[in-house]
Amino acid sequence: MTVTEIAPTSAAALEDVLSAAHGAAAAWAQTPARVRAQALLAIADALDAAAEELIPLAQEETNLAPARLGGELKRTTFQLRLFAELLVDGGYLDARIDHADEAWPMGARPDIRRVLEPLGPVLVFAASNFPFAFSVLGGDSCSALAAGCPVVVKVHSGHPRLSAAVGRVATAALAAAGAPAGLLALIYGTQSGRDALLDPRIKAGAFTGSIPGGRALFDLANSRPDPIPFFGELGSVNPVFVMAEAAAARGAEIVDGFMASYTLGAGQFCTKPGILLVPAGSGMVQDLAAAARPAPALLLNERIQSGYVDALQELLEHPDVRPLGGTEDALAAPPAPSLAATTAAALLADPEALITECFGPAALVVAYENDGELLAVAEALDGQLTATIQGEDGDALAPELVRILAGKAGRVLWNQWPTGVSVTYAQQHGGPYPATTAPASTSVGTAGIARFLRPVAYQGLPAHLLPAALRDDNPLGIPQRVDGTLAL
Amino acid sequence: MTVTEIAPTSAAALEDVLSAAHGAAAAWAQTPARVRAQALLAIADALDAAAEELIPLAQEETNLAPARLGGELKRTTFQLRLFAELLVDGGYLDARIDHADEAWPMGARPDIRRVLEPLGPVLVFAASNFPFAFSVLGGDSCSALAAGCPVVVKVHSGHPRLSAAVGRVATAALAAAGAPAGLLALIYGTQSGRDALLDPRIKAGAFTGSIPGGRALFDLANSRPDPIPFFGELGSVNPVFVMAEAAAARGAEIVDGFMASYTLGAGQFCTKPGILLVPAGSGMVQDLAAAARPAPALLLNERIQSGYVDALQELLEHPDVRPLGGTEDALAAPPAPSLAATTAAALLADPEALITECFGPAALVVAYENDGELLAVAEALDGQLTATIQGEDGDALAPELVRILAGKAGRVLWNQWPTGVSVTYAQQHGGPYPATTAPASTSVGTAGIARFLRPVAYQGLPAHLLPAALRDDNPLGIPQRVDGTLAL
Repeated sequence: MTVTEIAPTSAAALEDVLSAAHGAAAAWAQTPARVRAQALLAIADALDAAAEELIPLAQEETNLAPARLGGELKRTTFQLRLFAELLVDGGYLDARIDHADEAWPMGARPDIRRVLEPLGPVLVFAASNFPFAFSVLGGDSCSALAAGCPVVVKVHSGHPRLSAAVGRVATAALAAAGAPAGLLALIYGTQSGRDALLDPRIKAGAFTGSIPGGRALFDLANSRPDPIPFFGELGSVNPVFVMAEAAAARGAEIVDGFMASYTLGAGQFCTKPGILLVPAGSGMVQDLAAAARPAPALLLNERIQSGYVDALQELLEHPDVRPLGGTEDALAAPPAPSLAATTAAALLADPEALITECFGPAALVVAYENDGELLAVAEALDGQLTATIQGEDGDALAPELVRILAGKAGRVLWNQWPTGVSVTYAQQHGGPYPATTAPASTSVGTAGIARFLRPVAYQGLPAHLLPAALRDDNPLGIPQRVDGTLAL
Repeated sequence: MTVTEIAPTSAAALEDVLSAAHGAAAAWAQTPARVRAQALLAIADALDAAAEELIPLAQEETNLAPARLGGELKRTTFQLRLFAELLVDGGYLDARIDHADEAWPMGARPDIRRVLEPLGPVLVFAASNFPFAFSVLGGDSCSALAAGCPVVVKVHSGHPRLSAAVGRVATAALAAAGAPAGLLALIYGTQSGRDALLDPRIKAGAFTGSIPGGRALFDLANSRPDPIPFFGELGSVNPVFVMAEAAAARGAEIVDGFMASYTLGAGQFCTKPGILLVPAGSGMVQDLAAAARPAPALLLNERIQSGYVDALQELLEHPDVRPLGGTEDALAAPPAPSLAATTAAALLADPEALITECFGPAALVVAYENDGELLAVAEALDGQLTATIQGEDGDALAPELVRILAGKAGRVLWNQWPTGVSVTYAQQHGGPYPATTAPASTSVGTAGIARFLRPVAYQGLPAHLLPAALRDDNPLGIPQRVDGTLAL
């Protein structure tokens, strides 16, 4: 791995970036959605065309394999194209038209029309673990640009040269597509990120990373004289609940699926299943101890590797935790995938220490004695990105467990694995704190565009002053809710 | 006015309230939306039936006239009934179904379905100025109950006995409708409100009131180990821009409309137009000075009256502000409606002092010299609930002014007045900070329900474990977005 640092953005350069983003906001917001869609397609095409340059750079800076990086780039450009479709559909605008109505029961109502409009320049803090899909042109930037907002990306220090290259390709594509200058810019260094977050020209923040880092930025965004929305995706242990019937019916299959999921990408996924609950006495603990593990793999960078080793060591030093396999090489470099084991009773006695994210190829296996313990662990959880049930149809406990987990997690899975987050219309990648700082938002899927929009109502405006989305003749051909009834 | 204090809620009583709200959350969330709708209708009927008890109590505690209070109660019960309709419609759930698709371009996608679910117990801080519509069973409580959330109301100290009576009527109606115990409760006293906001069982806060009070609670909500969404509606000056053509064509009519709007309810509306921009030399300043004013009226209570007098006095002491009429009795009790005057140049030189809310029957008239000054004032605004244009069709400046104001305000009006906020599907009562702490939300209108919901995705669940809203057979008959396409 070779990471050449890029100098931090100077205060003068940051001022230029913010000034240009502010300057681009009005023009981009007024650019018709179909034209914004063309610009997203232009970026997607340009990134695909640059794959042969970008993937080796990404590999050099992140230790990730070319095949995985190729898939991630494909996901990234697919996402840009899907958001381009969304812009043409127009349903995301939530256009509402209430005509004036003398007979409105609370008293005559005026003509009021409401549509979602862009928030203004968005500051995106790139993540380390997906150098394409959650970085310079990842889901946050894609959502914000689609929404009509300029984007300033605070580059992740783990892959600065790749970021610069992606930024160069994308800004060239945007310029060729006629987008306003300053619409997308990159900044480098922790201080420039903090300074930008406090600048009044920035109207929202987005972040993917650790709980301490995300919380610090969330607090900073809220400390402003004019606080702004901050969409942080922080931490999650993504628990998996194996029910007794499932363990009996297909314990070995579940072990295989779990081993593959928690070690995928060397355990560096935000949806890595970090806790697996299995019935005590089912034999699954022994099967997990004996299961074959993939080879050791370098983590993204040395800082992440040392953080991982520290967290795992602390977990293993807990008096109620024992190594379950793989631990002989777990603290080496590169680390071998490893498991630790405890009981549900121990977990419930010390949830803060044991329900904790360990970013890397490790997980905690928790043996539970009965249904009561299983439900108690579910109730003890903090907010999660995902929660998974391995169960059998007709399990009497399942409805209650689904209900509890739906209150804790953004996504509840049944007999599947949480890693591999598909970009779709119904995807939800979020959850209550600390999974995110904004429980009503998602950072994956088309609904992510809503983060960077705010409603504006227009009362009594003549047609020529209304946004096209709100005209009675519906020139954009989008869904409109007219007098309370949705019309397509 | 007679306000008899009610003792602050004790720590033990608060614990009972929070415990009961937490206990009611699951049952209410699982109550079918149509049954929740019946409960809202039961509250509406019970409040209407209790009008003869409630309105005199409200009059005693707030100095507001019976006719106004009767209209407000009607608005409040209408709102409950409108939200009941919304629950039956089901569009607010934003139900999305993505079937599994092997051919999905980024790679095979699983079956994922997403719906909005209640956040959990909501703490509502009642407002002083609308003792029905923004208080115990006002828009915040109505939205939260409709969403499926228990509600704890921190009663406003200005109308405690009315609040207790409304609470008693509503809880009896809920009990008769079969709602879970603890679904709605009242607490009294500043400390109990702060304590409740910090309690982990409270999952969101809502507030209507002053900028300092709202900001303190917003900061408290964000200081929690697990920060929660806080929907605060704080302050707004609701500027009105009179364009030159309109001043020439119908200056006298605009003066009449403005006088009626800024003095409505003794100027104690959050949408009171507090700043009126008029063309210098148009004669409007003189017309405003000479206009007839309604009689002096008592404000809601002595604290509000003294706060108003202090704010107005400070404004009048500004070197660039002169009294324009009514000021001889403006600082008396009850205060006479009054106007002050300044210039756009002075306003732009000292916006912090001059663009400031003065809660009560006063407004600032600002003479501008040219279009450039008009646009500069628009650009200098903070976030607003409303911004109004008085213009003529075909005005060349209007499109630019609408665009700027849409970036500053939640609602933009044309040739109407901002007071009188209709409860409709397209209403937007919100705006960037300091108008609110959550620019994407509204506290009036059916879209207000979204504040108390969060998305949950279900991946791979068998039909019998899915929420009814997400089933392929659509038993609720609600709008569903299926594989990206909205179906009614």
